[in-house]
Amino acid sequence: MNVGGTSYRTIWPDADRGGVVHIIDQRLLPHRFEMIELRTMEDARAAITDMAVRGAPLIGCTAAYGMYLAAYHGNDLDAARLALAGARPTAVNLAWALSMQERIIRGNPPDVVDALRLEAERIADEDVANNHALGMHGLEVFASLRRTAPERALQVLTHCNAGWLATVDWGTATAPIYLAHNDGIPIHVWVDETRPRNQGANLTAWELGEHGVPHTVITDNAGGHLMQHGKVDVVITGTDRTTRTGDVCNKIGTYLKALAARDNDIPFYVALPSATVDWAMTDGVAEIPIEERSPDEVTQISGWDGESIRSVRLTPAGSPAANYGFDVTPARLVTGLITERGICSASEEGLAALFPEAA
Amino acid sequence: MNVGGTSYRTIWPDADRGGVVHIIDQRLLPHRFEMIELRTMEDARAAITDMAVRGAPLIGCTAAYGMYLAAYHGNDLDAARLALAGARPTAVNLAWALSMQERIIRGNPPDVVDALRLEAERIADEDVANNHALGMHGLEVFASLRRTAPERALQVLTHCNAGWLATVDWGTATAPIYLAHNDGIPIHVWVDETRPRNQGANLTAWELGEHGVPHTVITDNAGGHLMQHGKVDVVITGTDRTTRTGDVCNKIGTYLKALAARDNDIPFYVALPSATVDWAMTDGVAEIPIEERSPDEVTQISGWDGESIRSVRLTPAGSPAANYGFDVTPARLVTGLITERGICSASEEGLAALFPEAA
Repeated sequence: MNVGGTSYRTIWPDADRGGVVHIIDQRLLPHRFEMIELRTMEDARAAITDMAVRGAPLIGCTAAYGMYLAAYHGNDLDAARLALAGARPTAVNLAWALSMQERIIRGNPPDVVDALRLEAERIADEDVANNHALGMHGLEVFASLRRTAPERALQVLTHCNAGWLATVDWGTATAPIYLAHNDGIPIHVWVDETRPRNQGANLTAWELGEHGVPHTVITDNAGGHLMQHGKVDVVITGTDRTTRTGDVCNKIGTYLKALAARDNDIPFYVALPSATVDWAMTDGVAEIPIEERSPDEVTQISGWDGESIRSVRLTPAGSPAANYGFDVTPARLVTGLITERGICSASEEGLAALFPEAA
Repeated sequence: MNVGGTSYRTIWPDADRGGVVHIIDQRLLPHRFEMIELRTMEDARAAITDMAVRGAPLIGCTAAYGMYLAAYHGNDLDAARLALAGARPTAVNLAWALSMQERIIRGNPPDVVDALRLEAERIADEDVANNHALGMHGLEVFASLRRTAPERALQVLTHCNAGWLATVDWGTATAPIYLAHNDGIPIHVWVDETRPRNQGANLTAWELGEHGVPHTVITDNAGGHLMQHGKVDVVITGTDRTTRTGDVCNKIGTYLKALAARDNDIPFYVALPSATVDWAMTDGVAEIPIEERSPDEVTQISGWDGESIRSVRLTPAGSPAANYGFDVTPARLVTGLITERGICSASEEGLAALFPEAA
């Protein structure tokens, strides 16, 4: 997507120099837009660990390029794979991307450096293609909703960042938004700031703004009021994990927006690359473990003080805080799942019809 | 309630010196606890305008003492009343407290200074008595809920600050919490931080902590997840305005918590001094005007940087933000209204039975 009028991906190999991969340093967004050059496997590992890159698809792709950089320098590839695998805990895409590269290595290609670079590029292109396909299906939903209220811009509400910054390009929940905007469909996005880490205010607002998509940042508290007053036509979010029965685990607070959407007869869609379906789980609320993160993310917040990024304390020094990272929206509250193969109901039957080979 | 082991109200006349009224400077909480001496009507007006005091009952009481300070210095009392009336827009208690003082003045008391001081004290004491009465009714609800799960502390969730800092003492939603704690009933409070102004994190957490009530600060996104997992026994909030039919206008985000409570069969109570009932309104969502406040409250946030209170920017410089101050929770989601006269259903019949003279 565009940044300052120039088209970017979140990760790309240098066009002229071997052994150089570029990423955006997402830790500085939205206050500064800076790139980092990855030149070694260790650079790639640090980018993942230090969260210069985040988002499951982008983490996987960065690890794949990390294997290329290891081969470029003649490093031990087994050691590289282990180092990269430990860069972030519980990142499914990370393990998957490394297994793809392992398959390349086992194939004993004549030029392993080139083969690993090509596979990393293929993984990146596949992510872009999947998100684009998913976006085209979502676009049909948007176009259909817009026909019911053609006199104003389509009003979309989203939570957290399921944007292009979390993927290689397009994003998941944002893919139909960008496609609609590129097609000239009037669209406006309500962006939940998404406490505690504020990925909505930091990342979603920034990427929409740079691409030129009209949007407004709101507190996480505001969405219900907007829905009661007809200011939201559709809610769309991403997901970190969805059960085979359609229960959706996503950033904490998603469930509250789904409840408000249901109470106001507003469709609630989830953008869902099929790789995030957990085919072994049937009851999301009961079975999906919810990460408890550091209370510091609640008690402290970072922002721009005019010169640099600074952290300030929000709570009384003596008050404990709790920080649950995700919640589960039961399938009964989800209007539909938008996947790269089409749209289905949030149910075992719906998912199985689209993905019979996995169900 | 207690601060550092000493009992305080939010406003009190100096015990020894005439013409001196003390308040807590709430703008510095929770990072610094400092008092301000009000010595003139103008001091009282500034304390209201600059939000050193906030909360409708406390604003009214401060204005009442402002009239006393005007009389103490022989100021023109009509001019004083006009100046105080304009200190904050749309504050019903402010106009009410000034009308109480106007009645005293019209009665031509032999010592108008003393009469205005006594009336201000009476207004303060009445607020304390009403909140205590309301709290005793709420305490019965808490005691009854606790009997169903006696093996653990009662788990209460609250939104925003309907605490003693918003009143003269006890608070409204917090009154049964303090009474339960003082009675030795094990109780723990989940405190919504309450973006954008963070009255939960700044004020509710501070006042509970100083009084010794166990509590945990959470983001506004977390409550639904806690309710899904049995970690909340009851939700209680305050209200700024309630219709004669029981629709509850309160801080933005309250409606989302009411939806989650309903979805998880958790009782949702509203603590309601009867002065906040708007007997002229029947449809809260349609009729109650919702204040849109400055977007700066969303894009900027203040916290403690280790040496002072500092503001930082949270959003991209180019991203607009919207800031709705309140939302309306429909009566159908409210388990009961806790008033100074007892508890009733959130309905026209319920309120009319308790307050036949007003209905």
